[in-house]
Amino acid sequence: MIVIGERINGMFKDVRTAIQQKNPEPIRDLAQRQQAAGADYLDVNVGPAAEDPVAAMQWLVSTIREVSSLPLAIDTTKMEVMRAGIEAAEGQAMINSTTGEKKKLDALMPLAAEYNIPIIALTINEQGVPRDANGRAEVALNILAAAMEHGVPPENVLIDAVILPVSAQQENPGHVLETIRQTKLLADPPPKTVIGLSNVSQNTRYRELINRTCLVMAIGAGLDAAIVDCLDDELMDAMITAELLLNKQVYSAEYLKAWRASRCAR
Amino acid sequence: MIVIGERINGMFKDVRTAIQQKNPEPIRDLAQRQQAAGADYLDVNVGPAAEDPVAAMQWLVSTIREVSSLPLAIDTTKMEVMRAGIEAAEGQAMINSTTGEKKKLDALMPLAAEYNIPIIALTINEQGVPRDANGRAEVALNILAAAMEHGVPPENVLIDAVILPVSAQQENPGHVLETIRQTKLLADPPPKTVIGLSNVSQNTRYRELINRTCLVMAIGAGLDAAIVDCLDDELMDAMITAELLLNKQVYSAEYLKAWRASRCAR
Repeated sequence: MIVIGERINGMFKDVRTAIQQKNPEPIRDLAQRQQAAGADYLDVNVGPAAEDPVAAMQWLVSTIREVSSLPLAIDTTKMEVMRAGIEAAEGQAMINSTTGEKKKLDALMPLAAEYNIPIIALTINEQGVPRDANGRAEVALNILAAAMEHGVPPENVLIDAVILPVSAQQENPGHVLETIRQTKLLADPPPKTVIGLSNVSQNTRYRELINRTCLVMAIGAGLDAAIVDCLDDELMDAMITAELLLNKQVYSAEYLKAWRASRCAR
Repeated sequence: MIVIGERINGMFKDVRTAIQQKNPEPIRDLAQRQQAAGADYLDVNVGPAAEDPVAAMQWLVSTIREVSSLPLAIDTTKMEVMRAGIEAAEGQAMINSTTGEKKKLDALMPLAAEYNIPIIALTINEQGVPRDANGRAEVALNILAAAMEHGVPPENVLIDAVILPVSAQQENPGHVLETIRQTKLLADPPPKTVIGLSNVSQNTRYRELINRTCLVMAIGAGLDAAIVDCLDDELMDAMITAELLLNKQVYSAEYLKAWRASRCAR
């Protein structure tokens, strides 16, 4: 499982304040704690409020680099912020994200090819998010075709089936699980899949329970990567256990500690 | 989800002692608490140590009936104990279980037909538990054919893909998930599926975590019923949440309380 830590995001008040005040301490702390919790990537998003988003991204990346050499998931919809983030990270990065819209694919796939880095692609097209799994798998197939066209190897594409809040779109999580299953059948070797987990529990009272239950079902459906709050120990325990049950880690009585120890040894 | 409460089983010391001492109190208590926790069925198993297993089954059933009218899953490998349990329960029962072995199918399917009650059928044949999902789905198909032959309607058959301890058979849970998925495709309407959950965590240190993670993945794969410790609140929370995410219960902020209230209103 590829764990992408979600916490360095200007949507969170502590990060937004740190950006505004150019205070590196909360950013360093979040980077270190997420790395210690087992993150493979750190997501980096300046948030919608940043006055100069390019400068904010550059500052975030260089601040993170003071304490962590983990690759970064540069999380922005702005092309100039994306390029600035990737350059600041010296290519130790992932693009988060493109959609299946032609305009975006034509802009972002060349960037993924130029740096030879992974790219998250949301199953959204010019008409929006297709309602059901068939529609989303069709967008996924178009994304994979665009990747090939632009010289991005299929193993660098992560298909994101767009999870929406269960409180508002209750049929969505089931469509996402089915999209993950269908996406794994689209090519051989199977394309990688990812979800931005925490969105599923927006505006709910039992966020952690809903998050970890959704993550476990998605792993059962074949999920390869997730953007998550890896500081949520119970979420990580559930993820590690789901992978154990799928035989992706050798069983031992202390398999939770063994997983964490193997991450800390990196 | 059909919840079958596992606790009235002579394998547990409190139940074994109650049977030996003809002490009804612990049995009544377990029946009431499991019903309050949301059980649809109560499993009843006299355990391997019962001296007179027919008498023990009759006593257990009549003791449960003092406090609960829930249907019972009569859990035994002995034909005379099975019939005694079903008769004591006046047919408000389920057969737990047959296998796919011809001798057992020929004995137990007629009983399921006679009482028109559900029957759990393990995907085991004369050669044992098939290693992979294809082998188990083949046994499931044979079981469904035998049910038809004996006049048992397919909706009364619950296919059990035989979950084994992850500590010993680490590839097993993945095969079980795949068997559940394949079984749902064997007929239209899809056959029902069930697992005896707690077996997955035998001899492990994090039993509850492994149980609930496995249950959530199985629900994601299409599971219809489970024999579980429904007194484990976290397990039930996970189960309810998995079903919510699959749109099987209408969302509300207090969906956990709503599920439990709807069960208590029965």
